Amino acid sequence: MRGAVIHAPGDIRFENLEDPKILKPTDAIIRTAVTCVCGSDLWPYRGAEPTDAAHPMGHEYVGFVEEVGSEVTAVKPGQFVVGSFATSDNTCANCRHGYQSNCLNREFMSTCQADYVRIPNAQGTLVATDGIPDEKFWPGLLAVSDVMGTGWWAADAAEVKPGTTAVVVGDGAVGLCAVIAAKELGAERIIAMSRHEPRQKLAREFGATDIVAERGEEGVARIKELTGGIGADSVLECVGTQQSTSQALHSTRPGGNVGFVGVPHEVAVDGQELFFSHVGLRGGPAPVRRYLPDLIDRVLTRRIDPGKVFDLTLPLEQVAEGYKAMDERRAIKTLLTP
Amino acid sequence: MRGAVIHAPGDIRFENLEDPKILKPTDAIIRTAVTCVCGSDLWPYRGAEPTDAAHPMGHEYVGFVEEVGSEVTAVKPGQFVVGSFATSDNTCANCRHGYQSNCLNREFMSTCQADYVRIPNAQGTLVATDGIPDEKFWPGLLAVSDVMGTGWWAADAAEVKPGTTAVVVGDGAVGLCAVIAAKELGAERIIAMSRHEPRQKLAREFGATDIVAERGEEGVARIKELTGGIGADSVLECVGTQQSTSQALHSTRPGGNVGFVGVPHEVAVDGQELFFSHVGLRGGPAPVRRYLPDLIDRVLTRRIDPGKVFDLTLPLEQVAEGYKAMDERRAIKTLLTP
Repeated sequence: MRGAVIHAPGDIRFENLEDPKILKPTDAIIRTAVTCVCGSDLWPYRGAEPTDAAHPMGHEYVGFVEEVGSEVTAVKPGQFVVGSFATSDNTCANCRHGYQSNCLNREFMSTCQADYVRIPNAQGTLVATDGIPDEKFWPGLLAVSDVMGTGWWAADAAEVKPGTTAVVVGDGAVGLCAVIAAKELGAERIIAMSRHEPRQKLAREFGATDIVAERGEEGVARIKELTGGIGADSVLECVGTQQSTSQALHSTRPGGNVGFVGVPHEVAVDGQELFFSHVGLRGGPAPVRRYLPDLIDRVLTRRIDPGKVFDLTLPLEQVAEGYKAMDERRAIKTLLTP
Repeated sequence: MRGAVIHAPGDIRFENLEDPKILKPTDAIIRTAVTCVCGSDLWPYRGAEPTDAAHPMGHEYVGFVEEVGSEVTAVKPGQFVVGSFATSDNTCANCRHGYQSNCLNREFMSTCQADYVRIPNAQGTLVATDGIPDEKFWPGLLAVSDVMGTGWWAADAAEVKPGTTAVVVGDGAVGLCAVIAAKELGAERIIAMSRHEPRQKLAREFGATDIVAERGEEGVARIKELTGGIGADSVLECVGTQQSTSQALHSTRPGGNVGFVGVPHEVAVDGQELFFSHVGLRGGPAPVRRYLPDLIDRVLTRRIDPGKVFDLTLPLEQVAEGYKAMDERRAIKTLLTP
């Protein structure tokens, strides 16, 4: 089969690779329906994370089950399945608490920009759809496997409730999906912080009621202006830098909540500042598995259309161009078709 | 009147002071029934916080209303009242959200180790009891004004729920009251981290089911052993140092919560560590006013007896000895009677 391999920053190649095989009785092999490039794939692409040796890339996938290990009974060959970027047995103590992305047997996916993919913990990870969904739903279902699940988690962790005000920091695919989630969870006012017109437009389409283009403390001042001087009930931090984290914390009212879902890079939170702010803080890798049945249903019943975050579609073999377009901000997110 | 004044670290004097007067129509004057020394009073006493000029001390009080300003209608002269260390109008946006200790008109109390005290924002701050309670309840009601309210907030912020496991870090008066709160909120297992036998004993009396004497990562390992390897649902951080904060975060299961109520002194939380832990974090000065009616009722109906944290009673004029006994750990908390 063929798949994407990173050799060094900026150097993504589409290569012949060995077909994946069942290694454990809990594995499954899927044939990729569609896959994509994630904002977090740009960290190694840009050299912000080291690439010591060449390795495959990709952690988002939907596809057709090809083969299952002897202990996998929840899905069977031929079914169309959606899974999370973090695999989980869905039976351990952490899974039972709803934190499947902290499963005691967790393995992060990392080989999905390819024709075929081995899925560890398939029994607890994969969710099959009823029948084969129409191709028009594939991008939406693919979004559910990571960015939409992560946006939902941001809203859940920030405790968005009906009638409240939510702020979304970050206008990447996750931030845009977080707008969808805030709307679905009933936020009355959704303020998207974005400086890029096409993204502002999509944010409004997804349910944003206000756009704030300012950043940092200037952005915080605008949020305060829009929220009676005290800040928002919920802030969804979808970036992961020190600036975006401070911006999120300062935009939240006393007693409000920040959900932070961008992997933090060199971020520290001052204890005394957090203390006197009364802001609640929860983040982490999204427990997508918890949300999968519900989000799959919302996509297939057209309640939500997170597939719109894909504004560039390329054949899988042009994966390198898919990275380049996102790196140069010509695309929000690249869909890849095998 | 007479009251306590700090002149320098270790130098508390009981002096003649001017009688407090109504300064604003929202003020009240109370005659102190009982007052006390707080663990946080030891910060300036030990020189860990600067004392640039001599100033009165004390922020815990119950007493009899002497006089009220023209805008105060909720309480009247002669009534016995309980209030919070943080005054609040109880009408602003933050108060309405239940964060009265972040009231837009907040003033922190700081002159309560005295015969008479001026209470700003009296209308929103003071809660009168039905009739004058028997003197035996005064210590419990005094505890409610700060340490019991703060212990309750620790349990609330850490989302203690029926049937869960709670860990309390810190065996001072607040930590001991946090044990009471965890029990009242239905925790099935309450693990108190304490190395001091008299405090361990009181913790057990208040409802602790287990005691862990180890600290730091050794303490964390013991908590993990006691919680099936994953950590506790709720951890109540009642100290405020970097060590106690790390101990709390590491003792919590993925998806669990830390409530932190010890004012942090030089504490920083690493963003990436918090991210991958999936732990929720909320702290701050306790919104005692939110809990006052309920906690007063629990004391007067003998459901709880937080007054037991006072293991030394002195006449107010011996306030200096009250500080000394706590500083030398001869007393958990000193009650002062005018």
